Amino acid sequence: MIVNMSEKATEQEIAHVIERIREAGYQPHVTRGTERTIVAAVGSGGRRHEIEALSVAPGVEAVVPIAQPFKLVSRQTRPERSVVEVGGVRIGGEAVVVIAGPCSVESREQLFATATAVKKAGATMLRGGAYKPRTSPYDFQGLGIEALKILSEARQDTGLPVVTEVMSTEDVDVICEHVDMLQVGARNMQNFALLRRLATVDRPILLKRGPSSTVKEWLLAAEYLLSGGNGRVVLCERGIKTFETETRNTMDLAAVALARELSHLPVIADPSHGTGKQSLIAAMSRAAVAVGADGLIVEVHPCPERALSDGPQSLDFAGFENVMRGLCAPLPKIARSQPESVRSRAEA
Amino acid sequence: MIVNMSEKATEQEIAHVIERIREAGYQPHVTRGTERTIVAAVGSGGRRHEIEALSVAPGVEAVVPIAQPFKLVSRQTRPERSVVEVGGVRIGGEAVVVIAGPCSVESREQLFATATAVKKAGATMLRGGAYKPRTSPYDFQGLGIEALKILSEARQDTGLPVVTEVMSTEDVDVICEHVDMLQVGARNMQNFALLRRLATVDRPILLKRGPSSTVKEWLLAAEYLLSGGNGRVVLCERGIKTFETETRNTMDLAAVALARELSHLPVIADPSHGTGKQSLIAAMSRAAVAVGADGLIVEVHPCPERALSDGPQSLDFAGFENVMRGLCAPLPKIARSQPESVRSRAEA
Amino acid sequence: MIVNMSEKATEQEIAHVIERIREAGYQPHVTRGTERTIVAAVGSGGRRHEIEALSVAPGVEAVVPIAQPFKLVSRQTRPERSVVEVGGVRIGGEAVVVIAGPCSVESREQLFATATAVKKAGATMLRGGAYKPRTSPYDFQGLGIEALKILSEARQDTGLPVVTEVMSTEDVDVICEHVDMLQVGARNMQNFALLRRLATVDRPILLKRGPSSTVKEWLLAAEYLLSGGNGRVVLCERGIKTFETETRNTMDLAAVALARELSHLPVIADPSHGTGKQSLIAAMSRAAVAVGADGLIVEVHPCPERALSDGPQSLDFAGFENVMRGLCAPLPKIARSQPESVRSRAEA
Amino acid sequence: MIVNMSEKATEQEIAHVIERIREAGYQPHVTRGTERTIVAAVGSGGRRHEIEALSVAPGVEAVVPIAQPFKLVSRQTRPERSVVEVGGVRIGGEAVVVIAGPCSVESREQLFATATAVKKAGATMLRGGAYKPRTSPYDFQGLGIEALKILSEARQDTGLPVVTEVMSTEDVDVICEHVDMLQVGARNMQNFALLRRLATVDRPILLKRGPSSTVKEWLLAAEYLLSGGNGRVVLCERGIKTFETETRNTMDLAAVALARELSHLPVIADPSHGTGKQSLIAAMSRAAVAVGADGLIVEVHPCPERALSDGPQSLDFAGFENVMRGLCAPLPKIARSQPESVRSRAEA
Repeated sequence: MIVNMSEKATEQEIAHVIERIREAGYQPHVTRGTERTIVAAVGSGGRRHEIEALSVAPGVEAVVPIAQPFKLVSRQTRPERSVVEVGGVRIGGEAVVVIAGPCSVESREQLFATATAVKKAGATMLRGGAYKPRTSPYDFQGLGIEALKILSEARQDTGLPVVTEVMSTEDVDVICEHVDMLQVGARNMQNFALLRRLATVDRPILLKRGPSSTVKEWLLAAEYLLSGGNGRVVLCERGIKTFETETRNTMDLAAVALARELSHLPVIADPSHGTGKQSLIAAMSRAAVAVGADGLIVEVHPCPERALSDGPQSLDFAGFENVMRGLCAPLPKIARSQPESVRSRAEA
Repeated sequence: MIVNMSEKATEQEIAHVIERIREAGYQPHVTRGTERTIVAAVGSGGRRHEIEALSVAPGVEAVVPIAQPFKLVSRQTRPERSVVEVGGVRIGGEAVVVIAGPCSVESREQLFATATAVKKAGATMLRGGAYKPRTSPYDFQGLGIEALKILSEARQDTGLPVVTEVMSTEDVDVICEHVDMLQVGARNMQNFALLRRLATVDRPILLKRGPSSTVKEWLLAAEYLLSGGNGRVVLCERGIKTFETETRNTMDLAAVALARELSHLPVIADPSHGTGKQSLIAAMSRAAVAVGADGLIVEVHPCPERALSDGPQSLDFAGFENVMRGLCAPLPKIARSQPESVRSRAEA
Repeated sequence: MIVNMSEKATEQEIAHVIERIREAGYQPHVTRGTERTIVAAVGSGGRRHEIEALSVAPGVEAVVPIAQPFKLVSRQTRPERSVVEVGGVRIGGEAVVVIAGPCSVESREQLFATATAVKKAGATMLRGGAYKPRTSPYDFQGLGIEALKILSEARQDTGLPVVTEVMSTEDVDVICEHVDMLQVGARNMQNFALLRRLATVDRPILLKRGPSSTVKEWLLAAEYLLSGGNGRVVLCERGIKTFETETRNTMDLAAVALARELSHLPVIADPSHGTGKQSLIAAMSRAAVAVGADGLIVEVHPCPERALSDGPQSLDFAGFENVMRGLCAPLPKIARSQPESVRSRAEA
Repeated sequence: MIVNMSEKATEQEIAHVIERIREAGYQPHVTRGTERTIVAAVGSGGRRHEIEALSVAPGVEAVVPIAQPFKLVSRQTRPERSVVEVGGVRIGGEAVVVIAGPCSVESREQLFATATAVKKAGATMLRGGAYKPRTSPYDFQGLGIEALKILSEARQDTGLPVVTEVMSTEDVDVICEHVDMLQVGARNMQNFALLRRLATVDRPILLKRGPSSTVKEWLLAAEYLLSGGNGRVVLCERGIKTFETETRNTMDLAAVALARELSHLPVIADPSHGTGKQSLIAAMSRAAVAVGADGLIVEVHPCPERALSDGPQSLDFAGFENVMRGLCAPLPKIARSQPESVRSRAEA
């Protein structure tokens, strides 16, 4: 870290910073410029927060971090890409994995119809909510254990591994019994008690990015899982909150590329929450795959206009088939040759 | 709710919407304009999500909500302001309540020194973190139960009621034993499992606004508490995430005024997290009081540059005394009389 | 528009709203619900702002717009897609157009080297800044007319049509003399004086989305051009401002799909400004094409680390060739078949 | 500036950076840490952009700026606060200045009635729009020169100095003839052609913060004015764009305090645009004054529900009088003494 002294810092203030850096377990390294002095804290293993807190020491203008704050998730620690296996499906390998299913499990019929349809269309994993995080207490909160049982049966029936969201440490055990992968929802990305608990389970985790979390905060949330002992983590970009109101969230596809640049973990994308809009999902699915996402997670419902949750962003079966077809269509051709009119003008 | 049909909606599509509104338990009321048709869903007690999901029905452009989604927190339900009593201190009454203390309880000495100092300066409640939500797993995570015991002793010693953050349903019981008020941190505002648990405890709750939550989402989080049985809720604005990087968050003081307009619950403000910057806290504290906040919560540390967390936004004792003095200083005077030069020019 | 009366609105207040709607040239249409009354303003050709201002009339809770505010740019007005021809290059046709060149024209040598290289790599249009909008007055402000002349020569030499940014009404004439297309930069998207002037020129316009503009505001800016007489408009998404600091902007690819859904105008994407980061440009270029963009605009410089502006987001020639290659590479394959392990487990 | 090398940077890459720093006119100063090397560029008068562009040099992870980018607006350059005199009214002096008037000048009657009313209520300056920046080309665009004449007459009549917005370099001369102060609107904060022109006029400038501009970008826009020769600049915070939709903008009052900390220029606040909501203006006006704003600018209209623009955020005369009364009311009292119940419990 670098301590940037203000232009008016006195020698005494600089000396204080140097002393505090030593106390915190680092070596101070001073650079005196024409306008100001900077002091670098060199070394590793010191108490970083003590350097950070120097931002309020007299004569200090700012403390600037230099190193990345995450370690185990970093590609500098592990340059090769990780593959997370979920019930036989490999996420992060060569092929793009598509996870599909309803927002909420509403009934056995609804889930089985959806599971059959998405499998037929090409999905290799099934999603379905048992415990639902709902903005309003008056909205449908999920079927709970009943939904877990239905999911488990659907897995048996279709062979599709299943992922479902966990909202509370208290539900972890029962969920682990029934499904293949546990999802940490966007609102719980920084629920550290939950992350610490999930670091100890023998199940892979799907970690959604919080709607107001930077990529670094997201990777640090994953670091909770890895440092706690669970290295089977898949990241999921699902849109961030911005001023734009036409879409439910703003899907940040550059974050998919960036997370793959900074980390070895697989990264998938959720165009359903990312846009909140049925009509945009096929195009954004293609874009996510083109940017390098290792997979997609898509909401599908037999009849979106009767869905108990997330109807506006759910696809019906035909809509999902359309998404799958789109993933196999070639990219549009690029204009290459000079049009005659231009060439002749250039020659003139 | 209003279903806004697209300009090209067919009669059949309109008929379908009308039928679905009836099925969902509402009465349809059709308005045919020159360009488009709208269908209102009239009544109460119907299944609202079924109307929302009509946004994906053929021929529908959008579904527009009309009524506020919250009930028990609303001033329409309860026009008079609520007062929440915490260990004898009344929040939401005529006088502004100041809660102060360290970000984290680091030791008995640190907490007692701080408690004594903030009490002397005029604070009437004590804050201190036992369980800390930290972005990085490598940062100080709080002293846990040991901190709760220290807080409890400090309460005995100083008579100041104590508030501390709860991060997990599993810690609720032990925290209730030791402190007067439980804080739901910003990152947990939509931790619904936690909210549901806290709805059942016999302690008042301090509910911080999430960094990317709208005022409506914040009030709906409070609605979880009230509808679950706990009406002793104090709201706390602590800044939202924006593109501005000079401050840690953007403190949204209009949200304080707005929350008090929409809800009967008391609303306090946290200028420490709201700005993340020591030098702005006194000014923002005054502004929060001027906008109508029922209280403040401020981070104070014996030596901010040695704090284990939040040093950059913590005040030392002199800084906190300065904040308290500022709250009693009169507002600056308003220019009123016309300067001579203008008057004479106007007369010319 | 719909006037949503508050629950406590009196009959007199409702009557006032009805009367004002009539005065404003609309027909009022009243729906009385169990909790509240809504009044729709039906018709066209009335004074819309008078309905909007009713939001402050007594007893009114909100005024909700129903119709889209734009007309000429809308696909409802013109369902078929527009193609904008620029010096023989068709933007919005079947093939994706790539525009490339330096952020700023720095010298004849720099521009010619770049123009030759990007043409060779497959670009069909050339970009280059003559007048530069720079955050600081102490930064390089562009070569002005000298740059325009160099651009014009490069067009003659390479046959590539040229686009450059216009920052002021005063520069419009001289820019029109030298280049094929005028760009309105993101910071000027709502410079209405400039838009009104450009509505009258005989040149196509490249209209960048403002960094804090919604898609609707962007389309309304285009509406200034179309309603003023210039229908040759190409939209360009270049990222919006969010809390994320790892990238310069957050590139909103859903906005590309959405703008193409709402409008008939061609839409291109700018991954250079969209990310501000060299390493992300190839991936985001592919994603933009996959989402349906009609073209790309990319910054290329012979030696980015010596560029007078935008070095960090400029590609060198090899980097640009890599982008072009990426646009022709197939999308990754989709995992389809069930892995053995899953199937056998399902059978078990 | 500091060049932060990546952990894997080679000696050759470090040598290249050192050489480039020298070429750019700075002295390189190397700090070798246990994990990585940093190279500071020491000195002044070098070519800063060449150091910035090193972020793309091989082996470089990031380039970190250390010094503030603005000079003339900085309090480090000029520690004492500036006072800007506008037609005899001093902005930035001891007393808070209130500017009031309609969003748009709609007629002689409307403006004169408003001017008389706001003067009577205590305003010392008059605002009124002649040229209006409107999101839609179909909205009222202002009366132009006719409005300027009406404003000039109102100034003669009431003695109130007048401020109006300038949208284009072409209108600068005629506006200077008629009014005392020129406003740069939020959408034009980075219209650099306009800023450069206004740097040369003999009139004070009111510079609104752009809705997506950081405080630093705002101060750099002011730097265009000061470095171009016009030091009579007043800054105006008017809200930024965020995800919150209940208010038109999010008013960033900490930015008022911060701008006054970083710069010597006066800073006023606009609660009308800042909130977009009539009911919040009185509270936010008080808060702005409490945070240290040197003045307010408030929209007032004889009948907001008939206003041609900005009706929802305009106050009627009684509403404005209420704002003025609020500015003189004392702050609420602070709870000080310990309640009996607490004391006795502590004693127990």
